[in-house]
Amino acid sequence: METTITHQQFLAQATELATRNVLNGGGPFGAVIVTADDQVFEGLNRVTANNDPTAHAEVTAIRAACSATGTFDLTGATLYSSCEPCPMCLASSLWARVAGVYFAADRQDAAAAGFDDAEFYDFFDTPVAERSMPVARLTLGDAGHLAPFTAWAALDSRIEY
Amino acid sequence: METTITHQQFLAQATELATRNVLNGGGPFGAVIVTADDQVFEGLNRVTANNDPTAHAEVTAIRAACSATGTFDLTGATLYSSCEPCPMCLASSLWARVAGVYFAADRQDAAAAGFDDAEFYDFFDTPVAERSMPVARLTLGDAGHLAPFTAWAALDSRIEY
Repeated sequence: METTITHQQFLAQATELATRNVLNGGGPFGAVIVTADDQVFEGLNRVTANNDPTAHAEVTAIRAACSATGTFDLTGATLYSSCEPCPMCLASSLWARVAGVYFAADRQDAAAAGFDDAEFYDFFDTPVAERSMPVARLTLGDAGHLAPFTAWAALDSRIEY
Repeated sequence: METTITHQQFLAQATELATRNVLNGGGPFGAVIVTADDQVFEGLNRVTANNDPTAHAEVTAIRAACSATGTFDLTGATLYSSCEPCPMCLASSLWARVAGVYFAADRQDAAAAGFDDAEFYDFFDTPVAERSMPVARLTLGDAGHLAPFTAWAALDSRIEY
C-alpha cells in the first residue's frame, strides 16, 4: 500500500514536469528517477529545445542521475515516466541497470498526440528486409571488425559494464 | 560499386575510432555519421569515461551531428558503426530519421567481448511478465496522465517531431 502511494506520487511528479515542460519549449514528457539510496532526479524532454533527438525525459533523467552520483550504474533505481518509455528509453534503462519502470500514459496515448513511439516498437518486430530504415552488416575483410574487441581484451585497465 | 566502397571506407573509419578509443579510456565502439549533404561526424563510446550509460558511439555521433548542424532531424544521413547498434542506438537512429545503418561486428561478437547487446535485444521479445526489468503502467486517476498532451495540443508554438 505504502509502496503504491509512493509510486503514484513520483508518477504524478513526472507528469507535472511534463505539463510544465510544454510551456517551457519542451515536449510533453517528464521523468523522475529515484536511486537505490532515495536520491531524486528529474528529466525533461528537450529534443527540439536542444536539437538532440535523444533528449527524451527518461534519458535526460538517467544522464542527470549518473552525472550527479558519479556512476554509470543505477542498480536499484526506479524510473517514473509521464508516458510509456520508447525503445530507446527502455534500452537506456537496461544499460543503466534500472530496477523497474512505471509510466502513466501509454504508447497509444503518445501516438494520438502525434508521437512515433508505437511505430518504433513495431520496428523491432518487423522482419529485417521490410524495415523502414535498413540496418545491415558489411564485411571489412580479414576479421578487421574484431580489432576493437581484441584491443579491449588486451587492456588490463578496462572498466567493464 | 562506388557506393559499396564508400560504405566500407566509413565503416573502416568507425572501426579505427573504436580501437583508438580503447586506448583512451573508452569502450571498444566507434561510429561515423554522414549527413545528407556529406558532412561527417564521429562518435565514441564514453560510457565509463563520462559516467553516462547512454553515451554509446552511435548516440554520441547523432548528438554531435545534430548539435553541429543545429537540427534534431538528420533525414538522409547514414550511420556507420563498428558494431551492430543495440536497441537504444537503433531507436535513437529512428528518432533522428537516419536513412540507413551499417555495421561491422555483430551482437554476438559484442556478447563474446562481454557486452549485453544481444541480451537486451531479447528483452523486447520477452513477455512482459517474464522480463528482468518490470515495466508497468500505473493509473493516476481522473485521466491525469493526459494532461501533458492536452497542454501540448493547446500550444500554438509547438514544434512537432
